[in-house]
Amino acid sequence: MASASGLRRIMEDIAITTSSSPGQRWLNLGIGNPASIPEVTAIWQRMTAEALRVNFASVSCRYGSSRGTPELIHAIVNYFNKRYDWNIGPQNVVVGPGSQMLCFIAAALYTGPSSGRSTNLVIPLLPDYTGYQGLCMTPGGILGIEPDVQRATGRRFRYQFDFLALERQKDIGMILLSSPSNPSGRCVTSDELERLIYAAETADVPLLIDNAYGEPFPSIGDALLAPIWHRNVINCFTMSKVGLPGERIGFAIGDERYLHSMVSFIANSALHAPQLVQMAVARALDSGDLDAVVSSAIRPFYAERRKLGERLLHSALPASVAWRLHASDGGMFSWIWVEDDWFDDGAFYQIMRDKGVFIVPGRYFFVEPENGSRLGAHARQCFRISLSTDEATLREGVCLIAEALAEMQSGKS
Amino acid sequence: MASASGLRRIMEDIAITTSSSPGQRWLNLGIGNPASIPEVTAIWQRMTAEALRVNFASVSCRYGSSRGTPELIHAIVNYFNKRYDWNIGPQNVVVGPGSQMLCFIAAALYTGPSSGRSTNLVIPLLPDYTGYQGLCMTPGGILGIEPDVQRATGRRFRYQFDFLALERQKDIGMILLSSPSNPSGRCVTSDELERLIYAAETADVPLLIDNAYGEPFPSIGDALLAPIWHRNVINCFTMSKVGLPGERIGFAIGDERYLHSMVSFIANSALHAPQLVQMAVARALDSGDLDAVVSSAIRPFYAERRKLGERLLHSALPASVAWRLHASDGGMFSWIWVEDDWFDDGAFYQIMRDKGVFIVPGRYFFVEPENGSRLGAHARQCFRISLSTDEATLREGVCLIAEALAEMQSGKS
Repeated sequence: MASASGLRRIMEDIAITTSSSPGQRWLNLGIGNPASIPEVTAIWQRMTAEALRVNFASVSCRYGSSRGTPELIHAIVNYFNKRYDWNIGPQNVVVGPGSQMLCFIAAALYTGPSSGRSTNLVIPLLPDYTGYQGLCMTPGGILGIEPDVQRATGRRFRYQFDFLALERQKDIGMILLSSPSNPSGRCVTSDELERLIYAAETADVPLLIDNAYGEPFPSIGDALLAPIWHRNVINCFTMSKVGLPGERIGFAIGDERYLHSMVSFIANSALHAPQLVQMAVARALDSGDLDAVVSSAIRPFYAERRKLGERLLHSALPASVAWRLHASDGGMFSWIWVEDDWFDDGAFYQIMRDKGVFIVPGRYFFVEPENGSRLGAHARQCFRISLSTDEATLREGVCLIAEALAEMQSGKS
Repeated sequence: MASASGLRRIMEDIAITTSSSPGQRWLNLGIGNPASIPEVTAIWQRMTAEALRVNFASVSCRYGSSRGTPELIHAIVNYFNKRYDWNIGPQNVVVGPGSQMLCFIAAALYTGPSSGRSTNLVIPLLPDYTGYQGLCMTPGGILGIEPDVQRATGRRFRYQFDFLALERQKDIGMILLSSPSNPSGRCVTSDELERLIYAAETADVPLLIDNAYGEPFPSIGDALLAPIWHRNVINCFTMSKVGLPGERIGFAIGDERYLHSMVSFIANSALHAPQLVQMAVARALDSGDLDAVVSSAIRPFYAERRKLGERLLHSALPASVAWRLHASDGGMFSWIWVEDDWFDDGAFYQIMRDKGVFIVPGRYFFVEPENGSRLGAHARQCFRISLSTDEATLREGVCLIAEALAEMQSGKS
C-alpha cells in the first residue's frame, strides 16, 4: 500500500515532464481524465452552484451520514428502481469518496487474512485496471487470471475468460472486474456474467462490478449490459467519467449484508463522502439532467471518438507491423497489441516520450502470475491510448506512433 | 473495521430518535458538530463560490494529485513556514479526505502486522477520541494507557500521563493523541510533549498529534501549544472544526519518510481529496481570512461558551453530588465525572434520554485494557456534553442534568 505502482511512476513521469518543460509541446495520449465537454462541465457547475446556494450551511457545515446524504440515497434508490425495475432501499446503497475507495473498502473487508485463512482478490480477466493492484494490503493477495487471446479478422483481437482457471481457484475473497474494461474496452456478456455469478455464489463471495464506463452513466459503448441485481453482486458507479473526477464521488449498490459492513468501514475511515457534491449529484439524478447529458453529449462524443481512433490507426500504422486493436465494445481507450518480436512496451514508451508523446505501456495492466505466464510476450506487447484527449492530439499522436513503429521495425530505434 | 463501535450506536440512536419524532423537542448535548457561527459559514460559502467560478473546470472536472492540489500545498507550506518559522516543503505535506482518514492511513501503515511482528496503535492518555478505536484493522491492536486521575480544588480534576507505563510498552507502532483532547479538553504541555517525543524516538515510530481543536485553527482554548516540528512527529490538521465538517478535508505535516507512504496510500485508496474545497481552503489560508475569522469569531465564541458551561454547571448541579469538571484547557466539550457509587454513565444516558436530552456516556472514550483496569469505576462515571449547541439548549440541558442527578442520588430513577 505504501509503494508507488509501476503505472504511478509512469503517470508521475508524465505529470512532472509535461509541467516542468512548458516550452515544449507534449502530446498526452496517456491521460485517464474524461474528455472536457463544455455541456457536461456546464451542468455540473450549475448543479454545484444550486447546492452551494441552497444546501451549503446544512451539508458543508455539518457532519453527515456515513451511508450518504439522505437526498442522494433517495435519488439513487428512485433512479435504479425506476430505470431497472429493482426493489432496492437505502439499506442497499452506500455513497463513498470515489468508487476507487469503495473498491478499496470491499477488498479490505472481503479479502486478505481473516479467521485463520487468507483469501485473494481475484481479477477474472486480465488485463484490467491497474488501480486494482493497489487495493490489496497483503503482498501477493491479488490473483489475476490470464485470458485466452483470440485473434480475429481485420486486425482485431479479443480476450476471452478462462472460466476453468477461475473455477479452479481456492481462497477467493472477492471477484472484481471493470466492464467496459479499462484498458481493453471489453464488455462482459450476459452469459459470461452468469458464469461469474456462479463462481461468486459457489465461493459465497461478492462479485464487484465496476461500471465506471458503463450503464447507466457514462454509458460509453455499444454492447453495454444493464447492471444486474443479485445477492452476490456489488455494483459500483462513479461520477468521474461523467465529468466530476476531481470531486471523488461514487456509490455502490448491493445486498445489505455487504453494504452494512462497507458503511461501517467508511464511518471508521473517511467518516463520510464530501456532501456538497452529493447534493449536486442528487439534483442531476432527480432532474433527469444527468441522463440528458449522457445521451446528448457523452455517449455520442465517445462513439465518434472510437470510430475516429480506429480510422486513424488503420490509415496510419504500417501495414508491415503485426498490430491488432482489441475489439472495443466501449470505454475511453484503444488497446493495441503489436505481435512482433522487436516490440517491447517499455522501450516503446521511451521512444514515444522522445518524440514528445505519452502512451501507457501495457504491462502494468497484467498481474504477474506466481507460476509463470501462459501469455508469453503478449503482456509486453500492448499499449493503451486515450480517446478523451483533444482531436488534434489524437491525430498527431497516432501519426507519431506509426513513425515510431516503423523505426522500431527497421531497427533504427 | 466492519462493526459499529459503541459510540456509533449511541450516535445512531440520537440521529434516528431526533429525526423520527418531529413532534418532540430534543435537547442534543451529544453533538460533535462545530457551532453554527454565521460569519464562519459566510466565509466558506464565499470562498467556495469563488473556487466554483474560477477553478471548477480545472479542478472538479479533472483528476488531481494524491498529495493535494498544488495551490493548497503551496498555501500550507507558506502558512506554516511563515507562522512558525519552519522550513517545510511540499514533500512534508499531504492533503486527505478528512483528518480521520489521515489518522486511519497512518494507523494502517505504521501499526498492525508487518514483517513477522505486530505493533500496536498506542493512545498514551485515556480517555481520548472514540474514533481512534475504529482505526485499527487488527483486533486488539489498540492499546490505551490509563491516566492518573488527579483531584483538584473547586470541583476540578485532571488526567495525568502515566509515562512509565508508556515507556514499558513494547511493540509500539504509532502513538496517537488529540490535543486539546476530545473529550476532556486537556492540552498537552511542552514538557509532556518532550516526553512523548522521547518515547516515539526510542521506539522509532511516529507520534501523531491530532490538532483538530488546537493551533493554528480553530485555536479553541487558552493553553494551546503551537504545533512543533520534529522528525518523529506527524501533525494533523482539519477544516472540520473551523466550519467545514461536511466536506471532509484535512492535512498532515511531517517528515518526508512518513508522508511519502501516506501519499501512496491515498493514491491506492481514495486517489485524492476532493478538489473544489481544496481551492476554497487555499484561498482562506492565503488571504488571511481563515486567521481573521478564527480570532474574531471562533476563539471568542468557545471561550465564552466554556465559561458559560462552567457557570451553569456550578449553579445547577446539586452540591451533594460528587461531580467534578475536567480542567478544560480547550476544545468543544465539557467532561464531567460523578464520583458516586450510584452513578453509571449508561444508566444516566437512558435517564437523560427519557427527559428528552442527549449526552454522551463516557465509557466509549476508554479502551478496555487487557489486564484489568486500574481506574475502577471511573470509566463508567463520566459523561461528555457539547458546548457547540445553541445557548438555550445548553442552559436547559444542564438544568435537566441537575434534575436527573438529584433523582439518581435519591434513588428515584
